[in-house]
Amino acid sequence: MPMTDAERLAAHRACTRFLSGHGPRRARSELTALAAEAAEDDRGDRYGEGETLAAFERDVATLLGKPAAVFMPSGTMAQQIALRVWSDRRGGAPVAFHPTSHLELHEQRGYAFLHALRARLVGDRRRLIRRSDLDALAEPIAALLLELPQREIGGQLPTWDELVLQVEWARAHGVALHLDGARLWETQPWFARPLAEIAAPFDSVYVSFYKILGGVAGAALAGPADFIAEARVWQRRHGGALVTLYPFVLSARAGLRDRLGRIEAYVARAGAVARRLAAIPGVRVVPDPPQTNMMHVVLPGDPAVLLDESARIARDERVSVFTWLRASEVPGFSTFELTVGDGAMALDDALLARLFRRVVDAGGA
Amino acid sequence: MPMTDAERLAAHRACTRFLSGHGPRRARSELTALAAEAAEDDRGDRYGEGETLAAFERDVATLLGKPAAVFMPSGTMAQQIALRVWSDRRGGAPVAFHPTSHLELHEQRGYAFLHALRARLVGDRRRLIRRSDLDALAEPIAALLLELPQREIGGQLPTWDELVLQVEWARAHGVALHLDGARLWETQPWFARPLAEIAAPFDSVYVSFYKILGGVAGAALAGPADFIAEARVWQRRHGGALVTLYPFVLSARAGLRDRLGRIEAYVARAGAVARRLAAIPGVRVVPDPPQTNMMHVVLPGDPAVLLDESARIARDERVSVFTWLRASEVPGFSTFELTVGDGAMALDDALLARLFRRVVDAGGA
Repeated sequence: MPMTDAERLAAHRACTRFLSGHGPRRARSELTALAAEAAEDDRGDRYGEGETLAAFERDVATLLGKPAAVFMPSGTMAQQIALRVWSDRRGGAPVAFHPTSHLELHEQRGYAFLHALRARLVGDRRRLIRRSDLDALAEPIAALLLELPQREIGGQLPTWDELVLQVEWARAHGVALHLDGARLWETQPWFARPLAEIAAPFDSVYVSFYKILGGVAGAALAGPADFIAEARVWQRRHGGALVTLYPFVLSARAGLRDRLGRIEAYVARAGAVARRLAAIPGVRVVPDPPQTNMMHVVLPGDPAVLLDESARIARDERVSVFTWLRASEVPGFSTFELTVGDGAMALDDALLARLFRRVVDAGGA
Repeated sequence: MPMTDAERLAAHRACTRFLSGHGPRRARSELTALAAEAAEDDRGDRYGEGETLAAFERDVATLLGKPAAVFMPSGTMAQQIALRVWSDRRGGAPVAFHPTSHLELHEQRGYAFLHALRARLVGDRRRLIRRSDLDALAEPIAALLLELPQREIGGQLPTWDELVLQVEWARAHGVALHLDGARLWETQPWFARPLAEIAAPFDSVYVSFYKILGGVAGAALAGPADFIAEARVWQRRHGGALVTLYPFVLSARAGLRDRLGRIEAYVARAGAVARRLAAIPGVRVVPDPPQTNMMHVVLPGDPAVLLDESARIARDERVSVFTWLRASEVPGFSTFELTVGDGAMALDDALLARLFRRVVDAGGA
């Protein structure tokens, strides 16, 4: 008999181990840790000003090799603002990004509704943008957003040489280059270059602090000083210049300090997990091998059946392997997104193989 | 010899008592208190969903007598969204507000730059909007924003009868009424009605949690269910649907629970403080008497001289009376905004009178 939604939720909530990410947030312990992160006399930033915030913004700018950076509540805000500024500086010309960009899929088209920006979707939604896609653009654009890695296709990354070809196209056409670096931290092992070198070809960069870095929330936008000054004006217009953002800032600083050094291990572990899963008949990972610490895992079976088995595993073993799954394009297969963080670091290969064999058996492969 | 800016800042930072508000934020103790506010297994809201958040939104809606409410990071975001929705529903007609509205003065005109809203400023910037100002409007408007109390003129409030006259005008003209309730909590003693009754004539209401309630940050927008559902879409477009807002939510809940009951005492204390200050030759308060817990205090003297004396008082007595002052319209007078909260509750009248006599003497009155 299938479990009810409430039973599934309860089973996953009772888990002590989690395959994806760092496991669920624990509000009380997170706040306790943040309190220890605050200096005794820290009064928090106020409307974007304050010593702790300013120092952190300088550190982020340095890490990304840019003259300036501004902390923002969200990447949605940061990226719309970046594209608006670049478009305004080029007469309001369209902006271009991948069909699966966060701007296109997850922001209720704020870029159009708030900023009246017109978007050109570039390339095929199932693969990365290529230089040839850019060469095929017939009308001028103001800015090109490249997402490294491309989240919705399993965190794929171009080779450095392919990236350079795209950068050259942008330079030749006077197009501003913006880096959607929501998961930029995870690209360093693939490119084998310092973050500042990866960011160097880009005029502006957005990074996120709450995903692999485990912060509460928050993002930064980095770029030239005049660009960042202009972005701060837009941040106020968006309602993002809050009276204070200090809990987010403290958590971002802690995440950068404590987790950036673990990325290489996460990426290595993702490779090992992928090999183990792909060795199970019927299971595939995309990309294979993974290029970062994330991948799509494709399982034989329908979502409802697989989710039910995942919940049973959660109930029986207190291990949460996935809580969400979508039907794949190929009938009879389902896909979930796996991000390797502290959770997967604590799970051994034999256990993973056993649990996924159980999932696959339930799926009826 | 005047103190340097750094010396002034240091003197105020070393104070143990503060006339305005609740005194400065203490990040570490605030976070420690918030940790205790979180339930042991609270995982925080996620992109606007979660039990703690949903329950708080319901409580706020109930308190304001509206069918629904949504928590937002800022009032800037909440109010632009409210006016956008009402304007969209009336064919994009202009919106109207007081010349000192937060939208006009403090948001870099996001309403125009992001929402392409056209604003009609109503009435004189030195006094409240009157029914006669509305009668004089010659073109149709979509929405009228009324700010209760009107912050930039010392927190003034209309009589209930005058408010009803304005509400009747809006109803007669099919104009949506939006309440800027950044300081709505403080109006209850003046109107001597429950908050829901004060909010009843308005189609939508914004309230703030970080001012007198002492939360970290955050706001709510309340109104009809379909309006709030639409506002949530705009919140995502603004980049305000953060991965989590739980520290703000917990602090807002605590502020509402712990401080709403103190408002009446703050307002009473504001009246007493005003009488004491206005008894000093040369000192005036606006409005006199105060109608809420806030007022403008007008002092004889130039800002630089008065700020210097305030810093000396801070250094000598560890009491911070004001840290900011602007030149008044009348040459030789300066003005600061005073909000009575926990700070003024802990200061006795004789001390206040002595400190302000010292300020006035230094001002050379």
